Amino acid sequence: MTQQEFGAPYLVFLGDAEDFLMAKVAKGVAHWRPEKCVGQMRLPEAKADLGLPDMSITDAAAAGAKTFVLGLAPVGGTLPDAWLPILIDAMEAGMDIASGLHIRLNDISMLTEVAHRTGQRLIDVREPQVDMVCGTGLPRQGKRLLTVGSDCCVGKMFTALAIHKEMIRRQLPATFRATGQTGILIEGSGVPVDAVVSDFIAGVVEQLSPANDHQHWDIVEGQGSLFHPAYAGVSLGLLHGAQADVVILCHEVGRVQMDMMEGYPVPDLQTVIDTNLQLGRLTNPSIRLGGIALNTSALSETEALAEIDRVQRRFNVPVVDPVRTGVATIVDGLESE
Amino acid sequence: MTQQEFGAPYLVFLGDAEDFLMAKVAKGVAHWRPEKCVGQMRLPEAKADLGLPDMSITDAAAAGAKTFVLGLAPVGGTLPDAWLPILIDAMEAGMDIASGLHIRLNDISMLTEVAHRTGQRLIDVREPQVDMVCGTGLPRQGKRLLTVGSDCCVGKMFTALAIHKEMIRRQLPATFRATGQTGILIEGSGVPVDAVVSDFIAGVVEQLSPANDHQHWDIVEGQGSLFHPAYAGVSLGLLHGAQADVVILCHEVGRVQMDMMEGYPVPDLQTVIDTNLQLGRLTNPSIRLGGIALNTSALSETEALAEIDRVQRRFNVPVVDPVRTGVATIVDGLESE
Repeated sequence: MTQQEFGAPYLVFLGDAEDFLMAKVAKGVAHWRPEKCVGQMRLPEAKADLGLPDMSITDAAAAGAKTFVLGLAPVGGTLPDAWLPILIDAMEAGMDIASGLHIRLNDISMLTEVAHRTGQRLIDVREPQVDMVCGTGLPRQGKRLLTVGSDCCVGKMFTALAIHKEMIRRQLPATFRATGQTGILIEGSGVPVDAVVSDFIAGVVEQLSPANDHQHWDIVEGQGSLFHPAYAGVSLGLLHGAQADVVILCHEVGRVQMDMMEGYPVPDLQTVIDTNLQLGRLTNPSIRLGGIALNTSALSETEALAEIDRVQRRFNVPVVDPVRTGVATIVDGLESE
Repeated sequence: MTQQEFGAPYLVFLGDAEDFLMAKVAKGVAHWRPEKCVGQMRLPEAKADLGLPDMSITDAAAAGAKTFVLGLAPVGGTLPDAWLPILIDAMEAGMDIASGLHIRLNDISMLTEVAHRTGQRLIDVREPQVDMVCGTGLPRQGKRLLTVGSDCCVGKMFTALAIHKEMIRRQLPATFRATGQTGILIEGSGVPVDAVVSDFIAGVVEQLSPANDHQHWDIVEGQGSLFHPAYAGVSLGLLHGAQADVVILCHEVGRVQMDMMEGYPVPDLQTVIDTNLQLGRLTNPSIRLGGIALNTSALSETEALAEIDRVQRRFNVPVVDPVRTGVATIVDGLESE
């Protein structure tokens, strides 16, 4: 198996989420893959609302739901006891369960018994379900784009999803390749690379993004940063395995300190670009920078547009804020080759 | 737990090994840690001989053996059925079993039952037994040396063990930190970093090499190469987690092609040095090259000494072949600071 996959349509479970911070993953699923979401299920206490039809398990099953998506971050990442009967009902009604919780559903015997009896699957997306293979470094057909970061949490998944969406809108052949739990829950497939044994990172990414038509784009979600003292190894394995033709640098404007890493300043963008191209060249000598995606949420509209313009003049590639400006100019650049 | 450890003295098991290729690990244990080896146990068919006293389980137990070391590479990495009663006898006699086989002893119920009953441990050294923690990137006291490679299998473990041995001979405070299965079987402790989940590589290495006296050297065994398309992520996580003050570049003279990696030439030594220093600077701005260890086994003595001299003049650091010349000049350099 090269990746874990589950079927659409989804019933997206919001539990008792009070706000969108708790329901962040569910919101991402509904935002990026509305066509895969048949409805949402909310407990009476829930305040979050994805704008999807409210459904019971029975309603959703009747509407053809194939997967019950547990896209929440309850405090501590555990599963409230009160949700167990809901998950059991969903399996009884013919749905697989896809969960991004830290706790493994496959460790809960009440659930595994029902899964066994009904033939439904418990899919813990934080846990790689793939064959562990070492990288070969051999080139493969098709084009690949990887989002890379100046730090963690700077918009690598968002940017990749936005570029993929724009390509699909233009009817370009493209596939989003998820490498983290939220991306996997959104796409319904992928590999959580940070949970892969380190010997196999590059190999697993090679499998995740196999040979394809020579015009086809794999849009690979990046992880971490080559400049993050804890996670750079993941980022390098991903860069080598993806054999990226194009990297898109993602950066949050105004961030000066690495996320939760005392004493580690966010590196200069030129350094991040140079290092990614230098190291990426090992497995793809033609690697190039295809654009820069800024998160300018800390700025006013005027300041943001000025900053985008400034960075564009400095680096001479398309620069966007995927939220404010969309990513069309980046895709223009990729199309015009 | 920060690493897996087991006690000395060892009874080193040679099974029916016909030659030293099969008994490579056992040979390493006997060569580097003779003081930890009480004896060897050989089946009648065995031709390999470590020069240790031949002992039965009973003899070894009487001599105080604490760990039965399974340091072999039988074809396929599995455990011959005929060896099961031997392992059981060893546990009955009060020994833990340390194994570098691919097959997990902890998956064999005949063995786990005896382990449970006797209170002895089955230690699969390929399997990390450590707490999974993320890297902090915070500096810690003590000095650290890491061996880095132009490729896999170029002498990183051998060089680290040789430098450690020379330091101990000079009564310098030093600890060998094993990061691979053979190193762990030799030292009796360590972490197999290539088997650690990728998110935790740097963090686990931080734990493996904790704060120490400011004059103390941790000699950390390197893995892979930043230029290996499959394993560079492991090497980078190790470099960042070790926060190396000094790297020693290990290289096999005459190797032009990366080990089993078609299309990947061995990079130029200057490039390997520059890249390790450049990336290592993230977690230790004072990182420097402390020497170069060449494997010159493909050369005659005259050629080898000429090559060592040539490389030394090119890079202006101590250059050795740990086998031919020893590593004294490298340790001289470290002592003279």
